[in-house]
Amino acid sequence: MNRFAMFRPGLLDALVGYDRRSALADLTAGTITAILLVPQGMAYALLAGLPAQYGLYAAIVPPAMYAVFGTSRTLAVGPVAVAALMVADALGGYAGDQAAWIEGAIVLAAEVGLLLLVAGMLGLGRLVAFVSHPVLSGFTSAAALLILLTQFGDLLGIDLPRGTAPTIVDAVIARIGRIDPATAFTALAAIAALLLARKPLRRGLELLGVPAATAMLLTRVAPLVIVIAATAGVALLANGAPPVATVGAIPPGLPTPSLDFLGSTAWLELLPSATLIALIAYVESVTVAQVLAARSRERIDPKRELVALGMANLGSAVAGTMPAAGGFSRSMVNHDAGARTQIAALVTAALVAVVALWFTQWFATLPRAVLAAIIVVAVIQLIDLREAVAIARYDRGDGATLGITFAGVLVFGIEPGLVAGIVTSLLLYVWRTSRPHMAIVGRVPGTEHFRNVLRHPVEQHPGIVIVRVDENIYFANTEAIRRFVFDAIDRAGTPHSLVLAMTSVSYVDSSGLALLERLEEDLATRGVALHLAEVKGPVADRLIRVDALASLFAERVHLSLERAVCETTGVAPEQQANEA
Amino acid sequence: MNRFAMFRPGLLDALVGYDRRSALADLTAGTITAILLVPQGMAYALLAGLPAQYGLYAAIVPPAMYAVFGTSRTLAVGPVAVAALMVADALGGYAGDQAAWIEGAIVLAAEVGLLLLVAGMLGLGRLVAFVSHPVLSGFTSAAALLILLTQFGDLLGIDLPRGTAPTIVDAVIARIGRIDPATAFTALAAIAALLLARKPLRRGLELLGVPAATAMLLTRVAPLVIVIAATAGVALLANGAPPVATVGAIPPGLPTPSLDFLGSTAWLELLPSATLIALIAYVESVTVAQVLAARSRERIDPKRELVALGMANLGSAVAGTMPAAGGFSRSMVNHDAGARTQIAALVTAALVAVVALWFTQWFATLPRAVLAAIIVVAVIQLIDLREAVAIARYDRGDGATLGITFAGVLVFGIEPGLVAGIVTSLLLYVWRTSRPHMAIVGRVPGTEHFRNVLRHPVEQHPGIVIVRVDENIYFANTEAIRRFVFDAIDRAGTPHSLVLAMTSVSYVDSSGLALLERLEEDLATRGVALHLAEVKGPVADRLIRVDALASLFAERVHLSLERAVCETTGVAPEQQANEA
Repeated sequence: MNRFAMFRPGLLDALVGYDRRSALADLTAGTITAILLVPQGMAYALLAGLPAQYGLYAAIVPPAMYAVFGTSRTLAVGPVAVAALMVADALGGYAGDQAAWIEGAIVLAAEVGLLLLVAGMLGLGRLVAFVSHPVLSGFTSAAALLILLTQFGDLLGIDLPRGTAPTIVDAVIARIGRIDPATAFTALAAIAALLLARKPLRRGLELLGVPAATAMLLTRVAPLVIVIAATAGVALLANGAPPVATVGAIPPGLPTPSLDFLGSTAWLELLPSATLIALIAYVESVTVAQVLAARSRERIDPKRELVALGMANLGSAVAGTMPAAGGFSRSMVNHDAGARTQIAALVTAALVAVVALWFTQWFATLPRAVLAAIIVVAVIQLIDLREAVAIARYDRGDGATLGITFAGVLVFGIEPGLVAGIVTSLLLYVWRTSRPHMAIVGRVPGTEHFRNVLRHPVEQHPGIVIVRVDENIYFANTEAIRRFVFDAIDRAGTPHSLVLAMTSVSYVDSSGLALLERLEEDLATRGVALHLAEVKGPVADRLIRVDALASLFAERVHLSLERAVCETTGVAPEQQANEA
Repeated sequence: MNRFAMFRPGLLDALVGYDRRSALADLTAGTITAILLVPQGMAYALLAGLPAQYGLYAAIVPPAMYAVFGTSRTLAVGPVAVAALMVADALGGYAGDQAAWIEGAIVLAAEVGLLLLVAGMLGLGRLVAFVSHPVLSGFTSAAALLILLTQFGDLLGIDLPRGTAPTIVDAVIARIGRIDPATAFTALAAIAALLLARKPLRRGLELLGVPAATAMLLTRVAPLVIVIAATAGVALLANGAPPVATVGAIPPGLPTPSLDFLGSTAWLELLPSATLIALIAYVESVTVAQVLAARSRERIDPKRELVALGMANLGSAVAGTMPAAGGFSRSMVNHDAGARTQIAALVTAALVAVVALWFTQWFATLPRAVLAAIIVVAVIQLIDLREAVAIARYDRGDGATLGITFAGVLVFGIEPGLVAGIVTSLLLYVWRTSRPHMAIVGRVPGTEHFRNVLRHPVEQHPGIVIVRVDENIYFANTEAIRRFVFDAIDRAGTPHSLVLAMTSVSYVDSSGLALLERLEEDLATRGVALHLAEVKGPVADRLIRVDALASLFAERVHLSLERAVCETTGVAPEQQANEA
């Protein structure tokens, strides 16, 4: 495989056999996604603590970069809610200094991009391995709930601090008397309209005889219509001072590409946060991409996804904006609207660029409460209680991991919660495998097969105990193995040999090596010789180089259990004991 | 088994057949250990930032408690160097307030005791599973080196801050001009004397014709002789002001048992530190106990060890002193001196109590430099470079884990370093198992055996792909399994069935469940039916309750691969595809 294969533009594959029908489909889907993305992008920028236009910038360059390098044809990359919250959380220290805040967001995008790119080049696509299903589920639900809480400020027209869930809830309760009725009404109306504009609107239109495709299209356009109606309404009512808080003047134009962020002093400080954002951005994007790929019978390449998301975020940084990722709901809209290739994403990017260049002043009177409503409606579907219950029912340990992640994010913050969840899942797995399956085995009479003495009528040889370990020998289970071996010896009276059947052992780490060394020594003290049988090639290659096991490998390693039994019984027990 | 079996005093077993010879052996060994323990105890108290007498208290109650409940007959429990350093580290915030510092040490002992006791009652003896060999090795070496550095203050007569290795090294360099010659000379002389009093002294005595046993005894007594000589020397030279810093007046007597620590406000704050101290105290103690047990062909019971160490530390707390653990070198001395049962530890405790009651004033002029020398000589043997090299040679990943732990402890501090090491070892293991062994299998002609198609001449059935997964299906490897399955299907053209051979799968976590659910769905999109074969009982019991897998379990789970092949080929491919 070519060493630069990971940089192969996924777009090239997509363009094979590209025709007019595909172009039309992509144009339609790209337009619909853009209509959704313009208000969402501005809303997520505010969520990340940035001016609204930064959300538009993040909706132009990243999708374009992803369109070139990505292997998913319909993943919609751009600003996403969870990453936006993580950005705001990471930049908490810069509160009050907008220039530093913006620079920090750019540095985060650059770091996320570089981390993903390097991971892609090192072939670390398996990084997803570290985020288990319960952790991702608990994290996403808690992040969504936290985002919801942060929106209460804009929804109710009150000032809220950033922070953990209890802080925000306390602040909302303390300010409950200062709620601005006009803002709250606007927010409620917007939320109601947005919810009605989904299934109810589509069903209603279909009942009125509107064709399904048209009904779907109208449903997609509805959020923008709501935004425009609210903006126009405020503009008309305003007469100078608008009755509710608005987005305000958004400077038109596109950002000049810049590498100024390279000189920032925030790099080291933001690296831990960037690592977590990169991990979540990658895991979420790949999860969405796989769901999409399965629907259209395609495959995605996790390694090239790392590179593509890395390039998208480096693009974000150069364009001077926040980190981007593949968003679930937007990708679903893109896919359901009929997108066939990455061309749809290029259409989306171009349309958002048009808005950023010439139409931003139209949004000056857009109420912040409406953007908050858009966020609320978008993230509420990320809270998945049913999934949490299903996980907890299936496996109590996994349910606990989910709960710890969820509570951790809400109470201690997004980063500590995520880290706590990941560490819990690792500890839990190690704990579970710390008692491996082991069995004393004997020969099935007349065959060369050896089976568990507790389950099969087998013959055992006096003086020999054969223990089969059904798991890799590694730090978590050495103690359990040691205990099982000594229990087996104690029960067997005074055996002269103990044979470890290594059939299922494909890995012995250095703790496992220490176990073997100590077994060799401690068994010798009791006059029992340690033997190994059926050691796999790679395992033997490593163990044979260890000095302390030299005599073991010279004399007491056997190709099969059959031969181990023949060779140990061929020697008189007394002699065996002396040798040991 | 009796539910209170874990509280069964180990001493009872030891006293079966106890005779005069055993009593004499225990008396001798207990005395020798006490001689070693008196200066070591005072030294470790200073290391923990406590007045010297607290080390004596920790050498009385904990060994006595352990003697009653412990299952190792010769483990010497009491103040140990690494735990003392961890105590000082945990209490850093109380610097300058001695009363708070002492109370903090007592709370730590209480928490360590309770944590171990609860772990013992919950049957969590497998806790050792979380500390891998490389982590323990790197941690112990780094802690020893850090202890060594902290002693430079007393060794050279300069003031040193507590802190990380770079801080201390910087401080030593900055104060190099202020070294007190008398102190440095005392320290050097003491270190030389202590080193000479080991092997060289014993060999010399043996060359002079002294019987080996006597030579050994004289070697053991040497540290106390050095302490007494230095103390007497300073007392004689002093004439008012001693020429070097001394321990000062040590109030005689024993502490009044007290439960005042229960009312401390430091409990919550110290809990994380106490957890780490408990983990290390337990792991180190059990490791030493197992080495000793192997030498005397005995067994220890990890669960009862938890209880015994828990009681020992609760004893520490009630006696108003610092956490205790089983020390390596002192246990070796106890064992080599011929200790047969826990009576030796009771003798040690009684003798230290005698010293604390009536002889403390004798140590007022003991130079601190001599105690520092005792610490240096004791901890220097904990730095095990050869072990580190052996681990790194055997396994690069484990070597890296050791290095990260070692460097982490020195540079970032003892607790962050330990946590970093543990987390690294967990991440490494999950990473290693994230690519499990998998194989496409086929039938060995004329048999019911199925083997890897790459290694054996087997027959495959058109339209059926059989994939065997040789590992538990859990969050780290779901992605790799998914990819392997789709690659196998792509290579097979258009199969109608995919059979997962679950022979080696003894656990499917909720991420594994999500994989199966998605495989079922995504394969169906491609017209491939998912089948399972040879599902183990406990795995099937859980999966069968999952709604999303209802149709899979109703129709496509087979007892054996043989039957899976028969049953899937019995159905025409077209029909199969339609069903899916």
